[in-house]
Amino acid sequence: MFFEGSEKKAEIIIDKNSLSLLNDIDDCFWQNMVERCNAQIISSVSNSECKAFLLSESSLFVWHNKLLIITCGVTTLVDSVEYFLQHIDNILIRQVIYQRKNEYFAHAQLSSFSEDSKRLSSIIDGKAYRFGEIDSHHNYIFHQHNNFQANENNKTYQLLAYQINKQVSERLTRPNLTPACVRDFLNIEVLFPGYSIDDFVFQPYGYSLNAIRGEEYITIHITPQAMSSYVSFESNVDLFKVTKQLLSILQPASFDFLTFNESNFDQQITTYVPEQYKSKALVKDELSNGYLVCFATFIWPQTIYTDAQRLDTKSISHAL
Amino acid sequence: MFFEGSEKKAEIIIDKNSLSLLNDIDDCFWQNMVERCNAQIISSVSNSECKAFLLSESSLFVWHNKLLIITCGVTTLVDSVEYFLQHIDNILIRQVIYQRKNEYFAHAQLSSFSEDSKRLSSIIDGKAYRFGEIDSHHNYIFHQHNNFQANENNKTYQLLAYQINKQVSERLTRPNLTPACVRDFLNIEVLFPGYSIDDFVFQPYGYSLNAIRGEEYITIHITPQAMSSYVSFESNVDLFKVTKQLLSILQPASFDFLTFNESNFDQQITTYVPEQYKSKALVKDELSNGYLVCFATFIWPQTIYTDAQRLDTKSISHAL
Repeated sequence: MFFEGSEKKAEIIIDKNSLSLLNDIDDCFWQNMVERCNAQIISSVSNSECKAFLLSESSLFVWHNKLLIITCGVTTLVDSVEYFLQHIDNILIRQVIYQRKNEYFAHAQLSSFSEDSKRLSSIIDGKAYRFGEIDSHHNYIFHQHNNFQANENNKTYQLLAYQINKQVSERLTRPNLTPACVRDFLNIEVLFPGYSIDDFVFQPYGYSLNAIRGEEYITIHITPQAMSSYVSFESNVDLFKVTKQLLSILQPASFDFLTFNESNFDQQITTYVPEQYKSKALVKDELSNGYLVCFATFIWPQTIYTDAQRLDTKSISHAL
Repeated sequence: MFFEGSEKKAEIIIDKNSLSLLNDIDDCFWQNMVERCNAQIISSVSNSECKAFLLSESSLFVWHNKLLIITCGVTTLVDSVEYFLQHIDNILIRQVIYQRKNEYFAHAQLSSFSEDSKRLSSIIDGKAYRFGEIDSHHNYIFHQHNNFQANENNKTYQLLAYQINKQVSERLTRPNLTPACVRDFLNIEVLFPGYSIDDFVFQPYGYSLNAIRGEEYITIHITPQAMSSYVSFESNVDLFKVTKQLLSILQPASFDFLTFNESNFDQQITTYVPEQYKSKALVKDELSNGYLVCFATFIWPQTIYTDAQRLDTKSISHAL
C-alpha cells in the first residue's frame, strides 16, 4: 500500500496588534478551513501561546500572530490557504509562505505546485523557488512579495528521512501499535522533555505527533510502509542537536535538512551529520522576505544488492 | 523551459519463422503505430538486419524478429503497444516488455505506469516490478508472463546521466547547434566507429541519435536544459567500456546503469565507474522471462552550495 507522505505546508503571519488568531478565532473557523483541503481535525492540545490541532492528514498550529498548516496525502492545501485569505481582512496579513515537497505519486495529486502558485498569485503578489535538483528530493517555495522582512529569530527546522531501516518499518507497521509504543521507540520524552503531547496512530498505518511548550512546537509524521517509508520532523527548536539520535534510531537510506533562518547551517551539518552519509545536494539562498533558506540532501552509499520490488498488476495503486 | 526526458520503452519479440517485421511490414504501419502515442517519424536509416526510425520523441528500431520503441515527453507509448498487439496475430508474439522510468513532471503525464500495466494486463498476462527506490531514480518494468525464456546473448545497456555540467548544458543549448557539433562533442565516431548514423537537433532544444551496424544499435537522447538536464544512452553493445569517456565529457551529478542479461554487472561497475561516484542504489533480479536485470544509481557528492532555482509564477510550466 502506498501513501504520499510528502507534505504541503503554509505559514501565514498576521499583524498581532489587530487580531489574535489564537484568542479571537474559534475552532469552527479552523475546522472549516481544514475541511477545504479534505482534512479533518482529530484532536488538539493548547497552552497560552499556541494551539496544536492533529489532523487526519498532519497538523495545524495556531499562535497569536501566526498559523502553520502541514498536510500530506492528496489534500489540496491551497484551498485552505485561499479560504483563510478570503475570510481574514488582507490588510492584517503580513506574510504568506506556501511550500510543497516533491511528490512520489504526483500523478495522483489534484494539483501541481505550479497550479497552486498561479492561484495564490491571483490573490497576492508572490515569488517562487525550487530548492534541490529536479531528479532528487526538492522543495518548492512560494512566498508573498511585499515589504515584510522576517525576524531572524523565527527559525524552522525540518528533518526528512527516507527509506528507514526495514526492521524499523516492520516495527512501526505492527498491528495494535499504540502512540506510547512509537513515542518510546523514538525516545520522544527524553529528546524533547517538558512538552504537552498529542499523538495518534492511524489505520492501517501511520503516526502523527504534535508537541508544544510555550511558543515552541514539534511535529512528527510517519509513513512507515517499507515500499515508500518517510518520516518528517519539523520544529522551531534546533533539531540538529537530536539528529544523530534520530538517525541512529531510523537508519534512513537518505535524509534532507531544510532550515529557515539557521545562519550556522554549514557548521551544524559538519558537526551533526554522521560521517557515513554523503551530501547529494547543498542549496542556500535568501528569499526576498528575509528568510535564509538552507537545504541539504544526504545519502548512505549502498554496497549490497537488493531485489526488485514486485508489483501487483491487478490491484496496483493508481498512483504509480 | 522544462521537458520530460524520462523514457517509456517497449520491446516486442516475435516468432521470426512466420513473419519478418523488417521485410514484411511497411513503413505505413510503423507510422500509424507511432502516431498512436502522439509521435511522428522524422527519418530513418537501415541495413539488412535493422531499420532505425528517428521519432519526434525518441526512436523506433525494427529487426526481423523484434521491435524496440522508446518515447519521451508526454507520449502515451502504451497506445502504440496496444496498436501493435491489435494488428499482429498474437500467436506470433513471444514476448512483450514495457518499461517506464520515473518521471519528474508526472503530473503532466496522460497516464501512470499502473494504468498502463492494467491496460496491458487486459490483453496479455503479465508481471510488474520496480527497480530502484521510490524516492530516487527508478524504473518500472512490465513483462508478458508466458513460456518465453530470454536468450542470454540478448543484452541491453542503458546509461542515464542527470544534471550534466552547466557548461556542457550551455554548449548543447547554443543557437544554431548542428548534429555534427553534438557528434563531435560526444566523440561519437571515435567511440562507436563503423555505424550508420541518423541524428537530429530539435528546436528549441534537444538531440537524438540512432546508429546501427548489422544487428547492433545505439540510441542517444539529450534533454540539455540546465534545470532538468538528462542524457540517455541505450545499446545492445557493451556501454561499460565507454562509460568513463562519456562521464568525463558530461560530468553528471548522478547517473544510472540499467542492464538486461549482463552477468558481470558487479565487476563492470567496479572496473568502469569512476571512484568519485558513490552508489546510491544497487538492485539485481531475474525476471520470470529469464532476463537478469541490474540497476545501479551513482551520485557525485556535492561540497559547494548552489543558489535556489528561481521560478516564474506567471508563466511557470504546468508540469511542476
